[in-house]
Parts: sequence; structure tokens; C-alpha cells
Amino acid sequence: MVLINGMEADSVSVHDRGFLYGDGVFRTFRFENGVPLHWELQYAKLSGDCKALAIDCPPESCFREDLEKLGKGNFVVKIIVTRGIGARGFLPEKDMAANRFVMTSPLPENPKSEIVARLCDLRLSHQPRLAGIKHLNRLENVLARSEWRDPAISEGILLDLDGNVIEGTMSSLFFFRNGSLHAPDLSRCGVCGVQRMRVLEIGRRNGIEILAGHFGIELLRNADEIFLVNSVIGLWQVTQFEGVCWKKGEMSGKFREWLQ
Amino acid sequence: MVLINGMEADSVSVHDRGFLYGDGVFRTFRFENGVPLHWELQYAKLSGDCKALAIDCPPESCFREDLEKLGKGNFVVKIIVTRGIGARGFLPEKDMAANRFVMTSPLPENPKSEIVARLCDLRLSHQPRLAGIKHLNRLENVLARSEWRDPAISEGILLDLDGNVIEGTMSSLFFFRNGSLHAPDLSRCGVCGVQRMRVLEIGRRNGIEILAGHFGIELLRNADEIFLVNSVIGLWQVTQFEGVCWKKGEMSGKFREWLQ
Repeated sequence: MVLINGMEADSVSVHDRGFLYGDGVFRTFRFENGVPLHWELQYAKLSGDCKALAIDCPPESCFREDLEKLGKGNFVVKIIVTRGIGARGFLPEKDMAANRFVMTSPLPENPKSEIVARLCDLRLSHQPRLAGIKHLNRLENVLARSEWRDPAISEGILLDLDGNVIEGTMSSLFFFRNGSLHAPDLSRCGVCGVQRMRVLEIGRRNGIEILAGHFGIELLRNADEIFLVNSVIGLWQVTQFEGVCWKKGEMSGKFREWLQ
Repeated sequence: MVLINGMEADSVSVHDRGFLYGDGVFRTFRFENGVPLHWELQYAKLSGDCKALAIDCPPESCFREDLEKLGKGNFVVKIIVTRGIGARGFLPEKDMAANRFVMTSPLPENPKSEIVARLCDLRLSHQPRLAGIKHLNRLENVLARSEWRDPAISEGILLDLDGNVIEGTMSSLFFFRNGSLHAPDLSRCGVCGVQRMRVLEIGRRNGIEILAGHFGIELLRNADEIFLVNSVIGLWQVTQFEGVCWKKGEMSGKFREWLQ
């Protein structure tokens, strides 16, 4: 099911700036028995990302109405907001009406807890003006995810151009070392997702020391536990990466429970 | 007029990866009296850009048929090729069928020869894997072009994160100093357009010394002449930039003639 500005539809104008320039933002989350999970956090991040790009985010009530139309099922929901349709050229017109898209797809089957990850060759570029935003310019993710087709490998881990560990191609990365939760700095690249914010909040609430900063690949290889999160998969512990193996970890299990 | 895979249409599936991820490339050029200008160069660059992203570029004959359907008028033509429609997720399916879009818009009125430019605050990020490619991830250009609305300023000049002069928001940049044509290096960022390649080729043919490299803003301020090119505007000499004024220049005039 696809709703465009509240109406069932499945196509978008070729003049929409989302199509022409990737000029928009998105969110992806679980919808269970008619409930969009962590909706308030999702909307807060959506409107924050719109603000960062000076896109006029539709009011929350519009999305609530859309989400009610989806019924009581279980899906993955993807929301896209584009700046809208305008004249040719990069300059947005004044007072453009944003377009909103609500799309469903099936929930993933066979949820996993432990996964194999690989190191991607592609390095993320630094763009402080776009860092953290879940925008529609996702070619880096496409190129990185295209590096492997082996279904035994669930995720690829990305470094930035300086060699700092940043995230997975579609997930946020954390690791434990000596009892401290390490969270890569996302001020120059990477996506700041709702599950990432929840992990940090849960860590704080449980008195876990959190180290945010720039971490190299050697530190990751020597981590006690590595885990990845996003709003669809929940939490994946990385138990194999770059020739290193990890046992099922206590902290990954705890965070998985806390997130649920 | 919009042709999608040869058929008149004006909308694209919300599942097209061009919309979802900016997973595609484009070209823009003049179409005069039924002739797409420098078509062979445009198609060569289009297919080269597709190849760099492992997108299966439609054959030239398809575009030739599309362009014939446009008749004998005068327009700007924009061509977009997206990777096509696939399942959810960044990983492209194997053997995806690319989608091709051919769109017309009016030629700009009142062509200019001399313009005022400004320096953009936004700095271009370094991503060697995408540098030079005219892809659909254009948020940097949108943000940069959004920095001003004064119609007296025609273009904004972009530096990279290291402070090197790269290009205009929608044009390629060159400058002359002591008789040498300076062409910014585009191996880490920027778009390599057909007019840029033509300027370099024309320079070589006319025995002009060409310096390709990394140039700072001070060198640009002290240039003898600065000009910008793209396939729609032709050549604009920058006669006012950052408080510096230039007279109408001999080399800019020569290059404008040579390009025509």
C-alpha cells in the first residue's frame, strides 16, 4: 500500500524534487497490530531532518491519519517527505508544498540475533551539513551494499575517509570495550536513527559509561561485543567480522531486551 | 513533454530507485531545431556515468528514437537514467532494467555573457567513487543554490572541504592566469560535464597551456579572467565576485566563440 498525501497512489511526478535531486528525507519503522512503533521519536526526527534541509514538514496529524488508514496489520512502514514539485533548477521556490509518502512492505522473516558482517571498501565522505540526516541521497549506501551478494553476510560496516568506524550500510553501530559503550561520532557523516538515540538513552538510564568519538578499525576488531541496530531489525550482534569471532554477548542480549 | 521508456507519461513509480535513493544519472543539453547538441559526447558521458555506478545504460538507439519524437522545436532536454524498480533495500537486484526519462523545458530567455557570482558557504565533500559523475544525489547543489535569492547574482562558486575551488552550483569553472587555463581537479568531488571536456579539448587544440590541479580562492581572486560553462548557458564570464571586478575578457570571448 502506498499513500501519497493521504491518497492511494503508486507514482510520483517526474518533477518532484525527491526524484530529480534526492531532495527529501525518510524514516523506516515497524508497524505492529496497527501501532507505529516509537512514532513520537520517528516524527521528531523526521521533522528535525526536514528543518535541517528547510523542507516544510507536514504536520504530525496528517501522518497519524495516513497511518490509521493502514489498518491493524503488521508491516514495515517507510515515510518519505520531499520538498515537492517546482520549476527546473536547484533553487527551491519559496513556500513549496512538501509531498508526503507512506509505503508499506512485509516485515522481514526469520529475525536474526547474531550475524556475520564484512568491512566495506567504500569510505563515507564528510559533509557536516548532511551528517546525521536520513535524506534521499543514498548512493554511498547503494555502492557499499553492492559490494557483496553472499546471503551469509548480513551487513557491511563502513569507515569514513579518515578510517573511522561509522555505521552499517543500513544500521547504527555500537561496540563494548572494558564495559564502556562506544558510539561513533556522526557529526561529519552517517545517519542518526531513532534506535541509535534509544540505545544511548537506555545506556544512560542504566548507568553505562558511553564513549562518543572517533574509533579506528583496530579498536573494533578488539571490541568485547559489537552490535548493530535499526528500527526494522532490532538488534543484531556481530559474531563474525574480518576474521574475528565473538561469542553471544551479555550486553548485546541486555540491550536487545531493553529495546523491546 | 516527458517520455518514460519512450512513452508519454509524467510520473514514476515510488519504487523506482531513482526516487528512493537518487540511484541514477542525468544529462542536460540544448535541443535546437530538432538537433540535440553534442549528442555523441552527451551519450558517451551518460553511458560512462552509468558504468561507474553499474547501471545498465539503455542503448543509444532508444534515446535517438525518443529525441526524434520531440520534433523540430527548441528546448532544454534533460535525460535521466535510473537503475529501475526493485525490491526494498539498498542492494540492487541482478539484471535490473534501467528506466529512461526524456524531459523538455523552455530554453532560458535573455542569454547572458557577463555575470555576478558569489562564494557559497557550503563546501563540497570528497567522495572519489562519485566524483565527476552527474548522479541524482544533488543535495549539496540544492543547499548551495539555496544560499541566495538575489536575481542579480547568477551563480555560486563552490570550494571543497579543503578550500580548493571546484565549480559553480550548476556549471564548470575555469580561470585564466598569466595565459594559462586553470581547470580544477575533479578526482574527489564535482561534476565533469560535456562543456568542460569541450573547453579542455578546444584549449589543447589552440595550443593554450592547461593547468589542472588544486587551486585556492586567492588564486581565483587574482585571476585574469574567470568563466563558467554548461550545456544550457554556454559560457558566462564572471565579472564580479567577492568584491573583485573584471573587464570583459578576450579569452572568455574566444572560448565562447569556439564553443559555439
